[in-house]
Amino acid sequence: MARIYNFSAGPATLPLEVLREAQEHLVDYHGAGLSLLEASHRGPEYDAVHTEAIENLRQLLDIPAEYSVLFMTGGATTQFALVPMNLLLPGETADYVHSGSWAGKAIEQARFVGRVNVAANTAKERPARMPAPDELNLTPGAAYLHLTSNETIAGTQWKTFPETEAPLVADMSSDILSQPLDVSRFGLIYAGAQKNLGPAGVTIVIARTEWLARAPENLPTILRYQAHAAENSLLNTPPCFPIYLVMLVTRWLLNLGGLEAIAARNRAKAETLYSVLDGSAFWRPTAAPAHRSLMNVTFRLPSEELEQQFIKQAAAAGLKGLKGHRSVGGVRASIYNAFPPEGVEALVACMREFERQHG
Amino acid sequence: MARIYNFSAGPATLPLEVLREAQEHLVDYHGAGLSLLEASHRGPEYDAVHTEAIENLRQLLDIPAEYSVLFMTGGATTQFALVPMNLLLPGETADYVHSGSWAGKAIEQARFVGRVNVAANTAKERPARMPAPDELNLTPGAAYLHLTSNETIAGTQWKTFPETEAPLVADMSSDILSQPLDVSRFGLIYAGAQKNLGPAGVTIVIARTEWLARAPENLPTILRYQAHAAENSLLNTPPCFPIYLVMLVTRWLLNLGGLEAIAARNRAKAETLYSVLDGSAFWRPTAAPAHRSLMNVTFRLPSEELEQQFIKQAAAAGLKGLKGHRSVGGVRASIYNAFPPEGVEALVACMREFERQHG
Repeated sequence: MARIYNFSAGPATLPLEVLREAQEHLVDYHGAGLSLLEASHRGPEYDAVHTEAIENLRQLLDIPAEYSVLFMTGGATTQFALVPMNLLLPGETADYVHSGSWAGKAIEQARFVGRVNVAANTAKERPARMPAPDELNLTPGAAYLHLTSNETIAGTQWKTFPETEAPLVADMSSDILSQPLDVSRFGLIYAGAQKNLGPAGVTIVIARTEWLARAPENLPTILRYQAHAAENSLLNTPPCFPIYLVMLVTRWLLNLGGLEAIAARNRAKAETLYSVLDGSAFWRPTAAPAHRSLMNVTFRLPSEELEQQFIKQAAAAGLKGLKGHRSVGGVRASIYNAFPPEGVEALVACMREFERQHG
Repeated sequence: MARIYNFSAGPATLPLEVLREAQEHLVDYHGAGLSLLEASHRGPEYDAVHTEAIENLRQLLDIPAEYSVLFMTGGATTQFALVPMNLLLPGETADYVHSGSWAGKAIEQARFVGRVNVAANTAKERPARMPAPDELNLTPGAAYLHLTSNETIAGTQWKTFPETEAPLVADMSSDILSQPLDVSRFGLIYAGAQKNLGPAGVTIVIARTEWLARAPENLPTILRYQAHAAENSLLNTPPCFPIYLVMLVTRWLLNLGGLEAIAARNRAKAETLYSVLDGSAFWRPTAAPAHRSLMNVTFRLPSEELEQQFIKQAAAAGLKGLKGHRSVGGVRASIYNAFPPEGVEALVACMREFERQHG
């Protein structure tokens, strides 16, 4: 098998050993005589998966006991609505940082529910950046401050989270588990799985359990975080197979040495790429150096024609998914946790050759 | 491999050839150099899956062009909330048939959203049954009439759907695709996949497109059926792998001869079981003969002790998941589309032997 280097922004590459393990047990799950795809969510096979996935997440992120770890569905986009539906009460204001496409979508959905204050807006700045903490125009007594830890389209990432009185809520879909994190600084964290956690189909929510009780009484049960927390995410049938992959991916991360180890690997991968981008005027990185994402490295070439040619040439060499998001164009190399360092070396070689030909 | 006979009510047994196909291509999807688990939802591999899954459903159910076929998440339980949030406007009343546990949960969630009239209530009747059409106390000008086509816990199933002025909305989670259906009689049908369609993690919604436009303007986009329909269920990242299994299962059904063919097989399986239950006073089927489910065959034995012994003895013979729902006890054999006829024969043999020993 000729495995490609998959630079897709999400769903994204998974560890090959995780895929092989899932394949080996797909038809007969560890001798149980059935597939995990058809196992009851109340049965022993799935129960062990569910428990280990939560335990692995707790261990990797050192999640305090007073936090719940939930498996939900509908992606981060559903969380854009559920966060204000649960946590923004009538009369309150929620502060949101507008840092790009994903933050913008979160703001748009929150406005259906309640009052939103955009505490800072860097969405249209070029080079792309995150706001500085002292730029934030915060609301006294805000229900929460929402931010997007990593913008996959702009290629930017928060390096230090702001200190606030209001609880922090973060969409960490594209950089969760990429480095150590102090969970205790957040009221709620959510992340669609399909970048750093597993395949599409499950969303992780990590939240201070007590805080979840504030949801309004007229919110249907299935939309209430607290109801999911009370039933350990078995309020209804969970997306068992995507959660199984999350269990395998988090086990892989633990075996690799945890978040310190993967963070070192992630930094090295990103530095390799950014040093090429900074080393020649042929390449034009699009994010401000202070806020460059370690997950999504975005850059332009001297012309759109050259960009298309580069993306095509890279694809022919087995480096796929490098096309920038359709809203901004350019080139984007998404190099999440599972993206192998060898793939970054291959990209660098491809870039050097392309620059030699066209620079 | 010793494959068990899996009588689980859901997640439920899948066709062995579907599992083998998924296994074969799990690491390298048809030579693409990546797994479908890590393929972009905007890429060619997943695009073909998505398109075929919808086309297969349209073909199997002969879905009229004016209906949308949606892939959503959160199971039927999420639909319990989304149906009234989208379709029950302020000042309107929705009629609901209360026929058992699942209908009851749908009613409970609808009451968070608007005014509900319980048009009939057979939930506590024994033997369990569905109401007759002339028992329905319908509201003039009701937003819709909601019913549960098959109650997995009670073991009952609608045989003829009522004729109403209001659009029919049906939870068909546990019998969709088990027999031909006139979709044009419904405003909206929803079904969690994990019984007849695939694994847990995706929910199918089939709805008259035009009707979906009535959702209130203050409903967040991601909770609006119309928004999902407008984007062909790619409003955000769908649960790609569960949908892939739905594609394989629906392809398997088409190859088998479609819904007429599977309905004949389902009737034969159920009749085999019910004839044993009716053939001796040792077994006590719990559903009224006129409303017996072809999907979930529920029965009691002379004592709870014998029930436990029977379930244990069957499990030892590789017949698993026969324990009735914890809320009602007894025995339940769930024999959805993919449950093999040989498994029913094996259960009958086990029942005969048990009756010989204890009858």
